[in-house]
Amino acid sequence: MALRINTADVLGGDRVAMARAITLVENQLPEGEALLQSLFPHTGRAYRIGVTGPPGAGKSTLTNKLAVEYRRNGRTVGIIAVDPTSPFTGGAVLGDRVRMSDVELDSGVFIRSMASRGSLGGLSKTAAEAADVLDAAGMDIILMETVGVGQSELDIARAADTTLVVLVPESGDAVQAMKAGLMEIADIFVMNKADRAGAEQAMQAITTILGLRQGTTPQPPVIATAALEGKGVTGVAEAIERHRASLQAGDGLARRRHERLEQRVADLVIDRVRRHLWTSERRQLLSQGVAEILRGTRTPYDVAHELVRSF
Amino acid sequence: MALRINTADVLGGDRVAMARAITLVENQLPEGEALLQSLFPHTGRAYRIGVTGPPGAGKSTLTNKLAVEYRRNGRTVGIIAVDPTSPFTGGAVLGDRVRMSDVELDSGVFIRSMASRGSLGGLSKTAAEAADVLDAAGMDIILMETVGVGQSELDIARAADTTLVVLVPESGDAVQAMKAGLMEIADIFVMNKADRAGAEQAMQAITTILGLRQGTTPQPPVIATAALEGKGVTGVAEAIERHRASLQAGDGLARRRHERLEQRVADLVIDRVRRHLWTSERRQLLSQGVAEILRGTRTPYDVAHELVRSF
Repeated sequence: MALRINTADVLGGDRVAMARAITLVENQLPEGEALLQSLFPHTGRAYRIGVTGPPGAGKSTLTNKLAVEYRRNGRTVGIIAVDPTSPFTGGAVLGDRVRMSDVELDSGVFIRSMASRGSLGGLSKTAAEAADVLDAAGMDIILMETVGVGQSELDIARAADTTLVVLVPESGDAVQAMKAGLMEIADIFVMNKADRAGAEQAMQAITTILGLRQGTTPQPPVIATAALEGKGVTGVAEAIERHRASLQAGDGLARRRHERLEQRVADLVIDRVRRHLWTSERRQLLSQGVAEILRGTRTPYDVAHELVRSF
Repeated sequence: MALRINTADVLGGDRVAMARAITLVENQLPEGEALLQSLFPHTGRAYRIGVTGPPGAGKSTLTNKLAVEYRRNGRTVGIIAVDPTSPFTGGAVLGDRVRMSDVELDSGVFIRSMASRGSLGGLSKTAAEAADVLDAAGMDIILMETVGVGQSELDIARAADTTLVVLVPESGDAVQAMKAGLMEIADIFVMNKADRAGAEQAMQAITTILGLRQGTTPQPPVIATAALEGKGVTGVAEAIERHRASLQAGDGLARRRHERLEQRVADLVIDRVRRHLWTSERRQLLSQGVAEILRGTRTPYDVAHELVRSF
């Protein structure tokens, strides 16, 4: 499949070129990397917002309503929805797209679903590269929404300028969120479906746990929303602006972007090493080694050692 | 911290030696690897059961009740609860341990919580090695419970002989589970809190989606439980036995263990490579490179290329 993509078309915001560029990135083709090379100098202008939280918290709805809010202020919006591929249908689950219907016909909004399973170069790498494409194409705001709260999803949300963690009263107490690692990455908490029972207590619990934190970092705000009805969404956008302003007032944004790029480059390095690693000969060594481990004549450590020595 | 551990003590099921061995494994110390080397030939006897599902589904409770069930049949049980470290307290969240109270005073049960965040060698590697310790120490059954449904948690649960996916009616519809990648790894579904409203429909939805699957793999059973009241737990244990018998009837178990070991060795290889990779010089190259990227004179790809060339 040869996709001809003109860098200038992507930079000009051509939607077909943008879509094709992300497909190249997703498939980790060499042409994709060449394209990203040429796009990269044009990135850095967009503001990246990560949206994460447990499944069913209403992240897609909030993302959709935030996009509407930004469009109202004349900003262009790119949305990357990290949406696992189902092994049953072979395609992406369409639920989120349906809920994105408020904005999907708007030419100032570009929505892309990405598969989280089977992503070749690591999910956080691919998502960051897709964000680069949207950034270079001139999107003002990039919303990166993840499904679930696994390590790679957290990595994506964390690799944003501002990270929102969306919870609902039903997603259990603040301890559950803490267990999932959400407390440490949130710049802003959103208590969605806040019209439901238990919302007050859930917000109070988050605030209490945040108060136990050591150190002097400012406490993230906790904003109540009912995203489906559009309630509280303006408050979230304002909280994002305040966070952005506070990052830009000091060296916070520069530091965040430096760390993010260090992680990006380190991921690229491991990715390249991994690609060179598993030649067909080494794969065969691996399979033979495992057969010997199962016969009890070797251990995983011996076999790994032999493989490392073979470089 | 020098921990003196006698291999024979671990093999004899000495609880202090087992606990120390897992601490060595968690800290990824060289002595830990030497110990694992000597323990490895004594592994392979235990049956490993992965328990995963969204936060709040009652995985700890089910794990606890399954342990009671196995103890009633005279089997020894090791439990590895992958429990994220909180950055706020610096320690593991104790919620699960409390819920483990039915079995924690039983000398035939060994429970260990492991931190998922900041795990040095990758979570799936550390969890598999802890399972090796319990396997070598003579535990008949090893239950590996994970919090959340991220990639690394799924990897742990999948690296079991039988994988349980625990859902509740409230965890949303089957589409949510599918989105989190749970459908593809389940050997058995458990619909916990099945006395609540919506359980019937939720089970029906899972069965319907499973029916859409292509291929000829047998359809995983869906078992209703109310684990807190101990209801349905025997049914889960029986389903595990049926799955085990079907794996052992063909080459299923051998194939699963071969694949699992290939992944183990590949993880070890990448781990070693990574450890050799980030010398202080290369870290400095990385930081300088990122500064240049931020000044617009280089791209992440140039910098990664330079780093790979430096090996």
